[in-house]
Amino acid sequence: MNEIPYKTYLNENEIPTAWFNIRSAMVNKPAPLLNPGTHQPMKAEELAPVFCEELIAQELDNDTEYFPIPDEVLNFYRMYRPSPLVRAYFLEKALGTPAHIYYKFEGNNTSGSHKLNSAIAQAYYAKKQGLKGVTTETGAGQWGTALSMACSYFGLDCKVYMVKVSYEQKPFRREVMRTYGADVTPSPSMSTNVGRKILEEFPGTTGSLGCAISEAVEVAVGTPGYRYVLGSVLNQVLLHQSVIGLETEAALNKIGVKPDIIIGCAGGGSNLGGLIAPFMRDKIKGKLDTRIIAVEPMSCPSFTRGVYAYDFCDTGMVCPLAKMYTLGSSFIPAPNHAGGLRYHGMSSTLSQLYADGYMEAVSVPQTEVFKAAELFARVEGTLPAPESSHAIKVAIDEALKCKETGEAKNIVFGLTGTGYFDLVAYQKYHDGLMDDYCPTDEDLAVSLAKLPKID
Amino acid sequence: MNEIPYKTYLNENEIPTAWFNIRSAMVNKPAPLLNPGTHQPMKAEELAPVFCEELIAQELDNDTEYFPIPDEVLNFYRMYRPSPLVRAYFLEKALGTPAHIYYKFEGNNTSGSHKLNSAIAQAYYAKKQGLKGVTTETGAGQWGTALSMACSYFGLDCKVYMVKVSYEQKPFRREVMRTYGADVTPSPSMSTNVGRKILEEFPGTTGSLGCAISEAVEVAVGTPGYRYVLGSVLNQVLLHQSVIGLETEAALNKIGVKPDIIIGCAGGGSNLGGLIAPFMRDKIKGKLDTRIIAVEPMSCPSFTRGVYAYDFCDTGMVCPLAKMYTLGSSFIPAPNHAGGLRYHGMSSTLSQLYADGYMEAVSVPQTEVFKAAELFARVEGTLPAPESSHAIKVAIDEALKCKETGEAKNIVFGLTGTGYFDLVAYQKYHDGLMDDYCPTDEDLAVSLAKLPKID
Repeated sequence: MNEIPYKTYLNENEIPTAWFNIRSAMVNKPAPLLNPGTHQPMKAEELAPVFCEELIAQELDNDTEYFPIPDEVLNFYRMYRPSPLVRAYFLEKALGTPAHIYYKFEGNNTSGSHKLNSAIAQAYYAKKQGLKGVTTETGAGQWGTALSMACSYFGLDCKVYMVKVSYEQKPFRREVMRTYGADVTPSPSMSTNVGRKILEEFPGTTGSLGCAISEAVEVAVGTPGYRYVLGSVLNQVLLHQSVIGLETEAALNKIGVKPDIIIGCAGGGSNLGGLIAPFMRDKIKGKLDTRIIAVEPMSCPSFTRGVYAYDFCDTGMVCPLAKMYTLGSSFIPAPNHAGGLRYHGMSSTLSQLYADGYMEAVSVPQTEVFKAAELFARVEGTLPAPESSHAIKVAIDEALKCKETGEAKNIVFGLTGTGYFDLVAYQKYHDGLMDDYCPTDEDLAVSLAKLPKID
Repeated sequence: MNEIPYKTYLNENEIPTAWFNIRSAMVNKPAPLLNPGTHQPMKAEELAPVFCEELIAQELDNDTEYFPIPDEVLNFYRMYRPSPLVRAYFLEKALGTPAHIYYKFEGNNTSGSHKLNSAIAQAYYAKKQGLKGVTTETGAGQWGTALSMACSYFGLDCKVYMVKVSYEQKPFRREVMRTYGADVTPSPSMSTNVGRKILEEFPGTTGSLGCAISEAVEVAVGTPGYRYVLGSVLNQVLLHQSVIGLETEAALNKIGVKPDIIIGCAGGGSNLGGLIAPFMRDKIKGKLDTRIIAVEPMSCPSFTRGVYAYDFCDTGMVCPLAKMYTLGSSFIPAPNHAGGLRYHGMSSTLSQLYADGYMEAVSVPQTEVFKAAELFARVEGTLPAPESSHAIKVAIDEALKCKETGEAKNIVFGLTGTGYFDLVAYQKYHDGLMDDYCPTDEDLAVSLAKLPKID
């Protein structure tokens, strides 16, 4: 028997009962959302036509340290949480590394990812407010599935705008959402003003998260009893996802392990922001010297090649402005890019932390990601989501560095989900049809030229 | 907090270290396999060209109570076991039943089912014997995926004959197997004598497990360094699957619960035989009065409408004869039948237990199964495999009977797997394209007329 088990589970009564707000620990708070017309900080009442009331309060609160998790949400968490912290013994052996690799596995639920952690919270607050339904966008489909499950649980209508390329690559995602009673539309669509406008300007577009957000927001604002909910980027989402980091911290404490490196994939930042929350707090306070690494795709490199500036959160420019690392709201990743992590910007919270030097970021080419994914599947037994595989790739790289130096570092990464609905992408990889396209400097110059001018 | 948690996990050091052989407890042992030519009981040396040596020993041994689980297998088990015993609080609430419902969930691994429990054991013995590879058949694709994972782990070649209708309904199953390096052929195929013969006789056939078995056996026997392995029906498979029942027993003891009813879906019997093993032992000994219910599809009702007789295990009639409840080896379920549970016969061990009155059996119509599956997905959060949903359907029926009588019975069922690769079937259900076709008496008379004559 190994001293440390393969899977460390907390007991159900050890599931965190409050979410931790990383902003409360930040020296420089994330920049506020701005009204796109006046360029003044958005007030709660301005956000109210779009978002649920209690979620707005969470969004704007940079000071409260802990938000209690409502009983109804905690009860739902017990359906699929705590998630295991897995010691990757098989991967370590395959790499021949002295490093100790751990991953927090969030894929053991039907949505297939961590997205359910925030979906159930957002659905709860929508229900509590007496709403009839919510709208949202989904890229890879994980968020849409999670929200469908959450809405089904609380008896809410759920309208999902799914990025067209994912809608086509993942025919069965729609069917899962349908099982949970959701209404799914490929985006851009002819059902909204913004969709029609985008289709007119770019007739062959395969869609983008930014564009799907615009459509979902338009429908939410225009439909009585509806609000819009979002699966990443926002502060409130990082708050809910802190349950990942809090459980990881508790599990590491249980087995007496101090992380040297924490690695997470980063699209809008929901998983990474949640995973690192308590560790980042200790790092800010000087109690922990853990390296924290964000991994993004080379095809959508907001941290590594974007600029830190105010930008629109959506392609249609109907949403508030957020200060973030961005590639420009009109940026759309190449259609060949698989899975999620397709968003043009990055969470304002993570952007501020990155700007302040608390985190590193690397971008990785797609075929290398799938190579890492396949190795992981074969030795660890779980077929990972393409998104999660970005973190696997860098965890492997760091473990191989340890092999060179002989260091037994503790490497922790977030395995956000499973790839059971990403087999078209795996097939492309196996067939040699996947490439490592990434935007040229000229591509980025075009979208960055459209950044709004803020005084 | 509930007194009994949602999920009861054993610790990793509580994973059983030996498989339990239910045959050792049986008063009437299962009838032996017969040589199809001589009609005499098969000897180990006659089975050796087809099966691995140690697996043959397990197959023929009706007396040994426990077989130690080899360390290499136990190590692999730790990758995904122990599996949780879940209290279905959400389902109980949705039904308004006083019954306490539990399910042993075997779907939290990439093969998506319990099949991995036997796959890793069989691959281990094949490797230990110095073989180059193994062949097998797969119906729904769960067994083929599990075997691919197991062979990848031990570096064995893996050739899978996949029932054509499943191959076509589940395009992504093939891709998962490919990720694990397996070679997958739709069956019947032109690559074997038996496949060509079947295609000649039934040009439009969508295949059957019995036919895929014939092809896999032919290739195993004809290829040096290969043997054939099977995911269900055989005694050895039930032996390996006893890990499910042993864990269930340990978890129930941990929470102090005595099962009143145990329910499992039954195709060839691998899950049911494993789940019930220790409980059946106690029932035979008169220590337990638990009702044990096998659930099968109305479209392939071997227990409920078959006869208890010697029959061929495969359509091509190249395999040994087994005494079992059978619909006749030429029986092929309607193409509209979704998922697995398509085998014409039933495990000899379970057949004997059923004949001796230790078990009940019911058959259920397909649309009712999917209705139960959808309810379960919505309230318990896991999208179940169609196979597993047969057990869900009957667990719900029994729980609703408790609602009428006011009894708080403890109902335990096996949730063998997830339905993430069964979305075509769910789509058919949602679109109203699924029917409850079941064979007529005339249909069965045709296939039963071809039973071999044994003195």
